[in-house]
Amino acid sequence: MKVGGYLGKILYVNLSRKDAVVKNLDLEAARMFLGGRGLGVWILFNELEPKVNPLSPQNKVIFATTPLNGTEAPSFIKCSVVTKSPLTGTILMTFAGGFFAAELKFAGYDAIVVEGKAERPTYLWIKDGRTTFKNADYLWGMTTSWAQHYVREETDPRAQVACIGPAGERLVKYASIIFGGRAAGRGGAGTVLGSKNLKAIALRGTKEVEVADPEGFKKAVRDLLKVYAESDRLKRFGKRGTPRVAWLVNEIGIIPTRNYQTGVFEAIDTTVNSDYHQKLVVKKNTCYRCPVACGSLTIVREGPYAGAITHRGPEYQTLGAFGPQCGNEYFEAIVAANMLCDEYGLDTISTGNCIAFAMECFERGILTKAETKGLELRFGNHDAMIKMVKEIAYREGLGDLLAEGVRSASEKIGGGSQRFAMQVKGLELAAYDPRGAKAMGIEYAVCPRGGCHERGLVTREVFSSPPPLDRFALEGKGEVAMEVQDEMAVLDSLGFCVFVIHNADVTMANLAGLYTAATGFKTTEQGLWKAGERVWNLERIFNIREGFTSKDDTLPERLLKEPMPEGPSKGHVVELRKLLEDYYKVRGWNAEGIPEKWKLAELGLEDAARKAGILS
Amino acid sequence: MKVGGYLGKILYVNLSRKDAVVKNLDLEAARMFLGGRGLGVWILFNELEPKVNPLSPQNKVIFATTPLNGTEAPSFIKCSVVTKSPLTGTILMTFAGGFFAAELKFAGYDAIVVEGKAERPTYLWIKDGRTTFKNADYLWGMTTSWAQHYVREETDPRAQVACIGPAGERLVKYASIIFGGRAAGRGGAGTVLGSKNLKAIALRGTKEVEVADPEGFKKAVRDLLKVYAESDRLKRFGKRGTPRVAWLVNEIGIIPTRNYQTGVFEAIDTTVNSDYHQKLVVKKNTCYRCPVACGSLTIVREGPYAGAITHRGPEYQTLGAFGPQCGNEYFEAIVAANMLCDEYGLDTISTGNCIAFAMECFERGILTKAETKGLELRFGNHDAMIKMVKEIAYREGLGDLLAEGVRSASEKIGGGSQRFAMQVKGLELAAYDPRGAKAMGIEYAVCPRGGCHERGLVTREVFSSPPPLDRFALEGKGEVAMEVQDEMAVLDSLGFCVFVIHNADVTMANLAGLYTAATGFKTTEQGLWKAGERVWNLERIFNIREGFTSKDDTLPERLLKEPMPEGPSKGHVVELRKLLEDYYKVRGWNAEGIPEKWKLAELGLEDAARKAGILS
Repeated sequence: MKVGGYLGKILYVNLSRKDAVVKNLDLEAARMFLGGRGLGVWILFNELEPKVNPLSPQNKVIFATTPLNGTEAPSFIKCSVVTKSPLTGTILMTFAGGFFAAELKFAGYDAIVVEGKAERPTYLWIKDGRTTFKNADYLWGMTTSWAQHYVREETDPRAQVACIGPAGERLVKYASIIFGGRAAGRGGAGTVLGSKNLKAIALRGTKEVEVADPEGFKKAVRDLLKVYAESDRLKRFGKRGTPRVAWLVNEIGIIPTRNYQTGVFEAIDTTVNSDYHQKLVVKKNTCYRCPVACGSLTIVREGPYAGAITHRGPEYQTLGAFGPQCGNEYFEAIVAANMLCDEYGLDTISTGNCIAFAMECFERGILTKAETKGLELRFGNHDAMIKMVKEIAYREGLGDLLAEGVRSASEKIGGGSQRFAMQVKGLELAAYDPRGAKAMGIEYAVCPRGGCHERGLVTREVFSSPPPLDRFALEGKGEVAMEVQDEMAVLDSLGFCVFVIHNADVTMANLAGLYTAATGFKTTEQGLWKAGERVWNLERIFNIREGFTSKDDTLPERLLKEPMPEGPSKGHVVELRKLLEDYYKVRGWNAEGIPEKWKLAELGLEDAARKAGILS
Repeated sequence: MKVGGYLGKILYVNLSRKDAVVKNLDLEAARMFLGGRGLGVWILFNELEPKVNPLSPQNKVIFATTPLNGTEAPSFIKCSVVTKSPLTGTILMTFAGGFFAAELKFAGYDAIVVEGKAERPTYLWIKDGRTTFKNADYLWGMTTSWAQHYVREETDPRAQVACIGPAGERLVKYASIIFGGRAAGRGGAGTVLGSKNLKAIALRGTKEVEVADPEGFKKAVRDLLKVYAESDRLKRFGKRGTPRVAWLVNEIGIIPTRNYQTGVFEAIDTTVNSDYHQKLVVKKNTCYRCPVACGSLTIVREGPYAGAITHRGPEYQTLGAFGPQCGNEYFEAIVAANMLCDEYGLDTISTGNCIAFAMECFERGILTKAETKGLELRFGNHDAMIKMVKEIAYREGLGDLLAEGVRSASEKIGGGSQRFAMQVKGLELAAYDPRGAKAMGIEYAVCPRGGCHERGLVTREVFSSPPPLDRFALEGKGEVAMEVQDEMAVLDSLGFCVFVIHNADVTMANLAGLYTAATGFKTTEQGLWKAGERVWNLERIFNIREGFTSKDDTLPERLLKEPMPEGPSKGHVVELRKLLEDYYKVRGWNAEGIPEKWKLAELGLEDAARKAGILS
């Protein structure tokens, strides 16, 4: 059986030298790390010198596809972006749905590795195997939708474009990359592109992605679509998207509110009013070959934010960041903040979290009107919230401080504000309070890219009905955390949508069948699980090499020491030490959180461990 | 010799019936009225019942091309939009450059006549002779750039799209139609589309426009390009665009400032600082086959309006409206106002003029803070100016009043404010004060679409160096007004750009040569002049049929009675009666401004005159 799915080619673009070189994909590595996230991490680990400054030309940004992107299989839509994060100093894997990953395959490559730094603002135009370095002086300063428009005008109106906005140009530490209406948001991948003077990448291609076993693949696709068809939950999800999560998490008292001061938002029914919101949703948007179409094109037609638009949401995390976190119940302001973040190229989660932090500082008198230039930066003041989004993007006034992230900002602001800088390893936390969902506490503490909810979302504590796990219990949480983390690593490395897996009974067997038929590499469920574990451990090794230790696997003081003050999670904190002990053990890591020798051998990561100084 | 240039087909789209019917172009009429403006006016005059409500389904909107649109001849870029204006009740001819007119030809039609009213929001998708009525529910409420984006996404990424914004949907009386980055701004053509529930028209075609005499045409094109090549002025103009006009008119004291209270703007050097502005201009934008590329893609990179963008300017008229007229010297605010007008689909001239009027009312105490909801609506307050643009588009608060136009608003506001409602026939005046350029006084007073500067811009009083005419003199102004009006009617009816004719020595002979070679209708310079005069007179006849008389050929009291208070035009008013007497005579009109019988005969307009009750 021949190899399919993979194209076997990686494009290396060096911006300093202005050259583009094609290298062969290492198929053995591809087999071990699948693609996407795993492949990107593997390349970065091998090619990046340890301890490079993330904003130096030595850092690299990898756009990686999977063998299933661009095929007929539904919902394989993710493009992985892998780099070293300027916000955390850790490995960064960030993702965007849409059409970019498929188009990258059509253009002829499994991945692009961006190296060096362009002398002047530049964008890349990659068409069917040909790379052109284009002048982007005129695009510099442009918001993302116009930048995409002008890049398309100059290249091909059907080009898929990834680009940064003014925030990335100004090296705001959590600048995103915008892909059409979608974002690779977290951790500052856009910042790294900004540091390289790379405004955009435009793609267009006509190559077809062949699979190794067309008949087997067709059957595997049919099997998957059957799962979709049988899932009423998926249909409901497609209609409503992620915002429904807000009720669920509010109901159990873990919706982070006013910078995590509580887990219940009193105005949740105003903020997330289904009937009302559905009136603002005018169309469903989809990603490449996804029948679910969960993106909700949302427009505001009246009031102070009339004219605001968001193409996919706002998703729950954005809603959480600019709703409860900022004490804001006005949905239209969330749409407006979402739009501005997309136009400026800002991560919505970090931006909302930074503003919520500043609001708490202001209410406590740590920040004064002198520092906010007269702005009443109180919870619930959505006008001030919207102004701050712009100030962050352009690094104006207080925004310049917040643009460094909440950890750095709290260090500079002082006054005890570090205590409520809600971040781990520098990455601002998302919209689940782990005091009422203990496994989530593990996630935030150990996620390789910092305090992230998504690389191992603990659905089983919260979203199933009823959840099979007691969310307050500590026992067995290490195991479930590992399981979901490894599952996510597989999904990311195959490019499959997390929302589908959460809403339909897609199994690892479905994915193994598709991977096997596409590539010709016979792979079992167990093989995929092992690949996911391998990816997660390589990310751990990357961070160890960068100097991270188990001391960095921690949580903000508030979550460890301040019991949840009210609601269905009242009285709880995260008992992190106990949780981590269990987790490390389940992972096959020692008490310092370093993978044991036998685990490294089991995963075939001994070489990597040697490079990181873990093995001699 | 065969007929070329014209395609011979007009598409009639009836939105009420949801049908699209092709009718033959009347070639004899085409020969008499050329195309574009002339053709559109002729169709509207013949097909529209007198006295229809402009916002009723009985009104029609005609998008008309010319035999030179879509050919190889440079700078024939205008699309004419002809309808009955909801702002003035007169005939309305309004124009946009760009690519729409050429694409309409490629799609197979000389013109589209839009009739009736759609039951639900609709857009038209016209591709190579096939018309589809598409649901626009989801586009309703969308700003113009996103509406164009989504229409392209649903039709063809290369489609040319004309659309309205929220202002047109809300029937703001001076809503524009946006064509890519260009606008058919004046008089409310967008309002009429809004009243018909027509959000957009998308075009795509592959037809080639044949000319009657290919060899002769090539030669005529070469001749024209030679004129371009020999004009240093045109090259300078291409680089700088229209904003330079601001200095010229300020220097002679006719730049309308603070709602025409004076003709000198003290801060002109800040507002229009060439060196500074050039830094914000990042790219030159062009129209279909125009080597001049006068459009200046302008972006604001910092300050309160960071992120603002305008794709062609701002042009001088926009600069005048939101700069001196509003007492605003901050250029970036002008760019922001320009962007918002384009996104909301508002005419920049009327919008700026209405805001300037409200500012004068506020400063005089006629409008109070109660009416502005606390807004300090003073000259120079650009923050308030920007807020008012949005309030007008969405008809919020005072904006609802101003959305009716300055004439109607002043009638409702009262308090003597009619005295400084700077409009003629309901159309807000542009940025030339006729007290220091007397022929311009004629223009404003007699222009068929109301107080407009453009349908006969008096270059010879102001822009030539030195001007051949004394701008304060009254003698001979009727003749020059008529000459420039007729010239403009020809340019509009051939689709040729006015900016080129003002900056290069393109002659009527050049145009006659092109028209003859394209169509095969042998036409002399004199023939074109006569056609221009015919168009102008037919527009006059249209308005007479609607009930307009010489009493409507007037100017705001301020221009007639308040001498210019300062500067190089100090002490002057417009001596309108004397100017009009001369003008009517030169035109061959009687003392009531009605074309004489012999003039009607000379122009072949006797039938039209009979329909209008001028001849029995």
